Parts: sequence; C-alpha cells; structure tokens
Amino acid sequence: MSSHVFDQAIAMELQTDGTFVGHTSPAYANMVGPFGGISAAQMMNAVLLHPQRLGEPVSLTINFAAALSHGSFVIEARAARTNRSTQHWIIEARQNGETVLTGTAFTALRRDTWGVDEDSMPLCPAPQQVPKGTGPIPMEWVKRYEMRPVAGAMPEVWDGSGDSSLTQLWVRDNPPRPLDFASLTALCDVFFPRVFVRRATLVPIGTVTMTIYFHADLLQLQASGSEYLMGQARAQAFRNGYFDHTAQLWNEAGALLATTQQLVYYKS
Amino acid sequence: MSSHVFDQAIAMELQTDGTFVGHTSPAYANMVGPFGGISAAQMMNAVLLHPQRLGEPVSLTINFAAALSHGSFVIEARAARTNRSTQHWIIEARQNGETVLTGTAFTALRRDTWGVDEDSMPLCPAPQQVPKGTGPIPMEWVKRYEMRPVAGAMPEVWDGSGDSSLTQLWVRDNPPRPLDFASLTALCDVFFPRVFVRRATLVPIGTVTMTIYFHADLLQLQASGSEYLMGQARAQAFRNGYFDHTAQLWNEAGALLATTQQLVYYKS
Repeated sequence: MSSHVFDQAIAMELQTDGTFVGHTSPAYANMVGPFGGISAAQMMNAVLLHPQRLGEPVSLTINFAAALSHGSFVIEARAARTNRSTQHWIIEARQNGETVLTGTAFTALRRDTWGVDEDSMPLCPAPQQVPKGTGPIPMEWVKRYEMRPVAGAMPEVWDGSGDSSLTQLWVRDNPPRPLDFASLTALCDVFFPRVFVRRATLVPIGTVTMTIYFHADLLQLQASGSEYLMGQARAQAFRNGYFDHTAQLWNEAGALLATTQQLVYYKS
Repeated sequence: MSSHVFDQAIAMELQTDGTFVGHTSPAYANMVGPFGGISAAQMMNAVLLHPQRLGEPVSLTINFAAALSHGSFVIEARAARTNRSTQHWIIEARQNGETVLTGTAFTALRRDTWGVDEDSMPLCPAPQQVPKGTGPIPMEWVKRYEMRPVAGAMPEVWDGSGDSSLTQLWVRDNPPRPLDFASLTALCDVFFPRVFVRRATLVPIGTVTMTIYFHADLLQLQASGSEYLMGQARAQAFRNGYFDHTAQLWNEAGALLATTQQLVYYKS
C-alpha cells in the first residue's frame, strides 16, 4: 500500500459477501464526522475496486445521510445494470446497521470522439505566484490540501459584507500525490461553504448531496500528475435552509477534468 | 384522476409490497423509449406518493440505465435513512426483471431562512412576444410542451456551424397545467441536446443521468400556476462520448425554482 495519507484513508477490505469495510481517518476529520470529500472518495473506491467493474467512472452522486462516527463502516456497491460498454451502480454505506451514505455511479468504456471544452479555465496567476490561503477553522482535513485562493477566499472579517459567492483557487493534495479518480472525487469537495463567502457570516452547514461528472479518463488524470488544479465554485441559489453550488476543476494545462455540483444545508 | 395528459402519464398503482406499478405513455414517446423527463417524473412520483414520505423534494438524481419498452414497470422507492426533518431515498425501476432506472432523492421539512438568488433570470422578451419553436424531429413528447426559444433554438440548417451551446427558452406544459414537483422534474429535461446546438449537427444521443435541486417549495410552485418558465441550459464540456449541461428554471416573476445538470451520451 502507498504510504500517502490519502491512500491510507481510502483503503478498504473486500469481504467474502462482496462488500467492503472502510474506516474513518482522523487525518481527514471535519467539524462533525469526516470531510465529505473523503467519504465520497471511499464510495467511489468501492466501485473502482469492485471485481465486476466495467470501464471508468463517468458520473457519481453521493448523498450524505448522517455524520459518520469514528470507526469502521461497510460499503455495498451493486452493479444494478451492466450493458455492453456501460454500467450503473447503486452504492450504500452502513455503520452500526444504519445507512450513512447513499449514491449512484455510472462507469463506461469511452471512445475518442469530437470534443470541446465550453468552459475555459479563468485567467489567473500561476500557482507559485499565489500565496497559500488559510481558513479560520483549523479542521484537520484542511491540512491535507494545499489551497492558493485567487478570488473569493475565506473572509478575513466576518461582517456580513459579501456580495458574490465566486471562488477560484489552485489546489492539490498535501503532500502532492498523482491524480486519480478517487483523489479527484475528494478534490471536488474542497470548496468552503458558499454561504460563508457570500455573507461573510459563519453559520452551521452540512453537504447533503454532491454530483460529479468526470470529463477526463484515467490517462488524462495521470498526465496531470501531482500538479495543481484550478477549482472554481459559485452558488446559484440560497433559500429556506439549502443552497447549491456548481464547480469546475481544470488541470494546469487548462483541460476541464470534472464538473460538479452540490446541495448544502445551512442554518440562519 | 386529473384528465391532463401529464397526470395520466405519471399515474401509478401502489402494490401490497410497497412498490408502484407505472406505465409508459405513448403521449410522451421519444425516439427510443419514453422522454427521459417523464421517466424522471415517474421516479419522483413514487417518492411523492410514498406513505412514508417526510417533507418535500429538495434533490433528485435519476440514472437512465436502459431504454424502457412500451408497457408497465415496477418502481421501488425505499427510505434508506429517516432523520428528524430529512429523509434519503433510493429508487429503482425494473421492467421484465431488469433494472431500467436508478436514482436517489432527498426530502426535507424546510424552514424560512435568509436567502438570495445568485443566478438572475436573463433579460428577455415576454413569452407572448416570442414565437413558438419547432424542432426538426417530430417526436411525440415535444408536442406536450409549448416552447418559445429566445436564444439557442434548434438549428434551422445543419451545417456544423455552432459556436455556443447556450439556450434560453420560455416553456410550459401543453395544454397548460399548474406546476408541481412532478411536472417541474419533467420540465428540467426539455432542453434539446446541447451537442445539436453547439455543432449544428445531428448525432445519436441519450441522457445518462440527471440531477435536480429544487429551490422552491410546493407553495412557491403553486404560486407559479400554469405560467411559463424561463429555462436556460449550457454545456460545460464535450469529450469522448459524453457531454454535460447545467440549467436553471425561473418562474415568470424571476424566482429561481430549480437548478439541474445532466450528462448525455453522444456518438460522433
């Protein structure tokens, strides 16, 4: 096994009944329970490691049903439908007999076609020219990522003054680690809650559901190596306890690797 | 039962084992199998009609695993986790014993909070001032919607000339029908394939997965009545057989009712 802290965190054991046993990782702890990105990566990994898997991940939806307690949990990934070159997965994680995560994934054998990125990477300074950002909340998982915010960093003064939720940042694993589907899944969840940025106000929050579309295949992820990704996120609406955001992640060469959206609970 | 064709199409019967039996509707037929929006609405309806449902829909993801054959199918909606004011659903539809649709949904009791729409409705002429659009493909389901494209209509000449996938259109049920969660679910899928608009080229396509975030509650949907919605959709990337799009739907008063994204297979 790789000695990288991310690989240790997503390691899981295949059981004789086809399920996997995973474990929460103190290195990726959040305020309550683990960082959602590491839980999503564990769910993705159950598909990646599954002996029946066909093709590579193209889409993933993970729903956060309850905060995980520290310890082990069981992930069941089931190939609900296998076609000639595509496969649909239903994934469910249970802890102490109760469902804590649900999800679906779609994997496929992809073929070369015409293509174009309609969303271009925003113009911004090179990562080395952008200072590292820090958040006001010293959660453990934040230390597992190197973040260099270009726009929409965590507010330095919490005075309710925000007027846009747009964030653009360079980000990569800390320490650096070659990109793959599991780590990209987790990276899709590194954006601080949009409500913090938009309102410059700290309120209790929790991600409810996250969907990822993988535009890159494994070769393109591997070609990105351990370089920085440009991540951009922006909310569309905040209303009655839930807000969403849409986000994009490009590699340094400007290829759009993944697009993602999530819905987040907030209290106010 | 309402005599509206949409209500007839999504009608289903609760079985003694807690599953529902639904039926494909010739009125919503697509090229191969039914319009994806009507299948998504049927999956949503299995949660809406479920005796154990808590709260209103806030998010929904539907995966299209196989084209449905004409006839009946069984939908199983299972409350995987019920919390104090939220609930997570796993939904699966089978036809002739094989999985054809999978999905997850999140329902919740919502409470008044601070809120803002960050995405504003685009400036555009009133629906009555915009001519009805027609597509080149006379599929049955298209007749069930009144569409008035403001920008990015179906190309009139298929010459490979497109340079943007943006579409903005006024849309409502035909004949008009008061908005609810089921009809809004279907309306989230009315956008013609972005690859047609971007390339002005007809290629085989099929939606793989669609996610919807409902920002409105039932009262706000009911307040929208049977008026038009402004729908906007744009692709982010086209690559190796799959493209995505993100879309927004506002009511005539300019409130953002839902945001949605989908991933679509294309051949070229």
